[in-house]
Amino acid sequence: MPAQRPALMPLLNVHDGAAAVEFYKAAFGAEVLFMITEGSVVANLAIGGAEFWLADDSPQHHNFSPQGLGGSTVRLVLVVDDPDALFARAIAAGAQQVWPVEDQHYRWRMGRVVDPFGHHWEIGKPLR
Amino acid sequence: MPAQRPALMPLLNVHDGAAAVEFYKAAFGAEVLFMITEGSVVANLAIGGAEFWLADDSPQHHNFSPQGLGGSTVRLVLVVDDPDALFARAIAAGAQQVWPVEDQHYRWRMGRVVDPFGHHWEIGKPLR
Repeated sequence: MPAQRPALMPLLNVHDGAAAVEFYKAAFGAEVLFMITEGSVVANLAIGGAEFWLADDSPQHHNFSPQGLGGSTVRLVLVVDDPDALFARAIAAGAQQVWPVEDQHYRWRMGRVVDPFGHHWEIGKPLR
Repeated sequence: MPAQRPALMPLLNVHDGAAAVEFYKAAFGAEVLFMITEGSVVANLAIGGAEFWLADDSPQHHNFSPQGLGGSTVRLVLVVDDPDALFARAIAAGAQQVWPVEDQHYRWRMGRVVDPFGHHWEIGKPLR
């Protein structure tokens, strides 16, 4: 049995998991790798192979959604080949611009959106 | 120039970035790939090659820490070869157990801790 290479995946707590899956498919072209919908939603998604998870919030288990808390505590840094195109696609799907895609002083081309579930995405790529 | 393979990295907002870097080094053996400390802290860390970022919180820019909001909105799923050992190391470094490492009905061996900065980590691996 080969050793497990360490992996780190964010698990987004959302107020409406089923709607969030549809949003991430439309906004980022996410693929659904795994999903359970009995009781509450848990889903494993991937954006061009980059995996993340989401689940319905459950404050009684310390799983708060941004809508429930009034803000988010983790940003999602999404590195892609064409941040301008993916940013535009996310806005078209219903995300809101926090700041536009621009060349930043830290030598990334990057912009930031907040999605309808309150999660913040920084979409960009390093400048070379 | 080769195409950028999509990557997704969580960026943890924390109340004290410098202390958080030290904690993640002790708790998870994290390696510091990049760090700026002028003004506020921004750091790029890796756990066995699995990258994440952290930054000092700045509520005026929508970057809330779990301590500031009273909870966290994203869980960190950390997949490693020996979750029992890493869980114990995190506890020894100052994390608190939410639930212990056990074989779960969803066929992962997994446990959950909350770190001193309020971020929740689910540490485990798939059962085969």
